[in-house]
Amino acid sequence: MSDSRTTLKQLKEKMSEFVREREWEQFHTPKNLSMSIAIEAAELMEHFQWLTVEESKNLPPEALADIGEELADIVIYALSLSNALDLDLSETILAKMDKNTRKYPKDKVRGKSHKYTYYQESKD
Amino acid sequence: MSDSRTTLKQLKEKMSEFVREREWEQFHTPKNLSMSIAIEAAELMEHFQWLTVEESKNLPPEALADIGEELADIVIYALSLSNALDLDLSETILAKMDKNTRKYPKDKVRGKSHKYTYYQESKD
Amino acid sequence: MSDSRTTLKQLKEKMSEFVREREWEQFHTPKNLSMSIAIEAAELMEHFQWLTVEESKNLPPEALADIGEELADIVIYALSLSNALDLDLSETILAKMDKNTRKYPKDKVRGKSHKYTYYQESKD
Amino acid sequence: MSDSRTTLKQLKEKMSEFVREREWEQFHTPKNLSMSIAIEAAELMEHFQWLTVEESKNLPPEALADIGEELADIVIYALSLSNALDLDLSETILAKMDKNTRKYPKDKVRGKSHKYTYYQESKD
Repeated sequence: MSDSRTTLKQLKEKMSEFVREREWEQFHTPKNLSMSIAIEAAELMEHFQWLTVEESKNLPPEALADIGEELADIVIYALSLSNALDLDLSETILAKMDKNTRKYPKDKVRGKSHKYTYYQESKD
Repeated sequence: MSDSRTTLKQLKEKMSEFVREREWEQFHTPKNLSMSIAIEAAELMEHFQWLTVEESKNLPPEALADIGEELADIVIYALSLSNALDLDLSETILAKMDKNTRKYPKDKVRGKSHKYTYYQESKD
Repeated sequence: MSDSRTTLKQLKEKMSEFVREREWEQFHTPKNLSMSIAIEAAELMEHFQWLTVEESKNLPPEALADIGEELADIVIYALSLSNALDLDLSETILAKMDKNTRKYPKDKVRGKSHKYTYYQESKD
Repeated sequence: MSDSRTTLKQLKEKMSEFVREREWEQFHTPKNLSMSIAIEAAELMEHFQWLTVEESKNLPPEALADIGEELADIVIYALSLSNALDLDLSETILAKMDKNTRKYPKDKVRGKSHKYTYYQESKD
């Protein structure tokens, strides 16, 4: 499995080279890249737009391949934005995960959706 | 730098554990996660909404920290969707990057935006 | 009911005045407004993120009020973009509705989702 | 100009009939419609993705026609959501505009972007 040996640095460097070779740094500005991520996120959503939540769990193989590509596009632009901002992405992710772990104590939120938790909090 | 040693598998497993401990698999369905990614992408965009493209390249440090967190949220949900779909994310990303490399030959698109390229293609 | 007597022109003029009085034309450029609409659309989605499709049909009154405000924000920015582009919005909407009526003949698509129709078309 | 005589009720009824004739009420649930609006908003953004803010103010006529259609799609789904929620859309819009007028006093925010205003507020 590629995920077990591929680091974020390897992916970021490959993306950085792709952008540099095309002289696309001028377009890959933070503002534009934030739009790109949102656009690709919408293309991902399009696959689920008319499905029930249940149906979205049982996708035909062709749909799965298309969905994988959309998800890749999102992460590719996220990598490019990390490059543009000179950000250590995995460090940022791990810090955010730690924050979420504290924000949603497992014994308190188990089996309840985030939203439900929010509602509870605002009632307390 | 954490990015040089952190693999996607490590991040995916950490996220998987976070979701499992909270029994949130029932909410983290593909349809819902595609919405989550789009919602976080919009929160990222919000930071750039009223800036010029140039201003977005010179961000104050506090903005940069907030932006990093929003970007982390996007990738965190992307990791969760990879888990839900049982997808090898780096393989999918590398395959898409190869596709993009063929689709946009560097000698043809150098210094031109993607969009310009599309226009050219439709004229040919 | 206000909808039965309020024209799009009245709403567009009210918005135009709001923007002009604040000298916000410089920020309400087409690029920025397209981002604003997407950001407000995500805020609307946030209310439905963890609900089933069914649950989204039975909303508590407080949720309904919040959702109405998010929807209003979307249309408000759409009005501002119509102003910025000097667009006759209702004419554009009516033309698009006519196009959709021809694209999705009622006897062919009845009871099938848009997506299903797309799949069928690609098979034909 | 069509905007000077077309009411929101006329547009909502035309949309309601379109949906009913296709038996699409089952798909046009609030959750799905919120996704549809976000998807169409992203398609609108796509036109501006690689443009500078300035360039987005000087669009070629063909781009303008496409952009009008994307904007129409957004408002069409907003009308359908108003129908699904049984919402008086213009009343909701006018109430939100009043709220914004109070939130952003013209003498205080003139010539400053919303964001700048937020920053100021948080400093006060």
